[in-house]
Amino acid sequence: MNNVAIIGPGLLGGSIALALREKKSARVAIWARRQEAADEALDNGFADVASTGLREVVAQADLIIFCTPIGSMPGLAKEIASAVRSDALITDVGSVKGAVVAELGWIFGEQGRFVGSHPMAGSHETGMKAARGDLFQETMCLVTPDEHSEPAAVKEITAFWQSLGAQVRLMTPAEHDEMVALISHLPHLLAATLVNAVAEHNPAAFEVIGPGFRDTTRIASGPSAMWTEILSANRDAVRKSAEAMIAKLIEIVTLLSSDSSHRDFLMNEFLTEAKARRDSLRLPPKNV
Amino acid sequence: MNNVAIIGPGLLGGSIALALREKKSARVAIWARRQEAADEALDNGFADVASTGLREVVAQADLIIFCTPIGSMPGLAKEIASAVRSDALITDVGSVKGAVVAELGWIFGEQGRFVGSHPMAGSHETGMKAARGDLFQETMCLVTPDEHSEPAAVKEITAFWQSLGAQVRLMTPAEHDEMVALISHLPHLLAATLVNAVAEHNPAAFEVIGPGFRDTTRIASGPSAMWTEILSANRDAVRKSAEAMIAKLIEIVTLLSSDSSHRDFLMNEFLTEAKARRDSLRLPPKNV
Repeated sequence: MNNVAIIGPGLLGGSIALALREKKSARVAIWARRQEAADEALDNGFADVASTGLREVVAQADLIIFCTPIGSMPGLAKEIASAVRSDALITDVGSVKGAVVAELGWIFGEQGRFVGSHPMAGSHETGMKAARGDLFQETMCLVTPDEHSEPAAVKEITAFWQSLGAQVRLMTPAEHDEMVALISHLPHLLAATLVNAVAEHNPAAFEVIGPGFRDTTRIASGPSAMWTEILSANRDAVRKSAEAMIAKLIEIVTLLSSDSSHRDFLMNEFLTEAKARRDSLRLPPKNV
Repeated sequence: MNNVAIIGPGLLGGSIALALREKKSARVAIWARRQEAADEALDNGFADVASTGLREVVAQADLIIFCTPIGSMPGLAKEIASAVRSDALITDVGSVKGAVVAELGWIFGEQGRFVGSHPMAGSHETGMKAARGDLFQETMCLVTPDEHSEPAAVKEITAFWQSLGAQVRLMTPAEHDEMVALISHLPHLLAATLVNAVAEHNPAAFEVIGPGFRDTTRIASGPSAMWTEILSANRDAVRKSAEAMIAKLIEIVTLLSSDSSHRDFLMNEFLTEAKARRDSLRLPPKNV
């Protein structure tokens, strides 16, 4: 990739830009909605050019990456569809893939070659100021081709994420949405619900929290508008995951409340299983 | 305090010992069940003396701290009750206070002065090797007097934890157990349940986790036998917290699944509330 256009200079867009600039491997153009954000991107060395002119930012690009909230991607995509190079590779970093891939794939059906991506990196912090060039190092990036994706485009986008230090896994958009509902969207819902349950039942407890509560609820500090979009766009899979979680929670609370002589034995078995699985995870790097 | 006896050289006992040794403020004696653990404590500078002889370790102590799992505290307490100085201050670091305070308070009713404590510090890591002298700096320590506690003893134990860098909050054992069920025991149950739900429904998802899942589930790596004891000892309050959590979770999942035109508005309100509360928390230091 010689010319990369990044649409939206937030945490992810900014981090991609920084990674490319550090490697000096491509000319980076950034589109921002507000002139001040474009100026800030340029002033802080995120890009070679930064502008609010969407079509001019993407015109030369051989790789275009949508890094805005998922809700605004289709509108922006329609705006540039007739301006992109016919051979341009196009991707996005959205946390939901089913709807996004279908819509962007359709919009870029005639012009450009679209393949969806979802780097499993990020933070509850947002914006360019939280961006870092090594954000994708040793993280996982899910690439989600569908039946319309060109095999060559899938290979190129895979190589791109690998060049930023990520490991790539391929899966369908539907597989992605189900998997990510369970390991990202449901955990977000749990964290927010736990915080709100404490607020409702015993707000004084907030004053004495330890490191466990700090970490369990960190993601509840993520941007709420963005997460509303994500949860809403993936609501069927999130509901399914939440129902599985609730069923398991009821099962274990029922056990805990029982007078069975096996109670502590079975409880210990449950916690031992969870610990063994958690201990064996390949954890993403502690840069967040 | 000139002579401190620490019963059990794990993460908390070891960290108290290190903190005292760094300040050179007291002679530290450690009791360990196994001779190798006693030797290790001595060899690594955790104590002035370390031994498996329980009564000899506590005989001279003006402060005795139980740092074993809560299940073994009553047995050890009975063993030393007739050996402790009549003016000895006695506390523990157990995560459940109702049963522990009642039982240890009764055992040390005639001899010694017992007040329960619960420092909100720790880690999923365990044992002396994870101990650190600054573990209690800027953390919260809950001190739980009951109607039998001497006011002077409460003051002394408060000053002791403050001398290790902790902030102290006083509350009754029952208030403690209800509060901690919500901010520590329930989160542990949620983390373990989430891990086991992923294992059951989509184990391949473990391979692509990001930083959110890493942090949300960290505490599931805690020692399972210890957590079984904690959850079991505080099961009434944990069940109550879990029921409140489940009710709130069902409420928000029902909203998410609805076709209401207010869905995203209300969802955003819920997440915005959670974010504002989480953002305003005084977080414990990132030393874990």
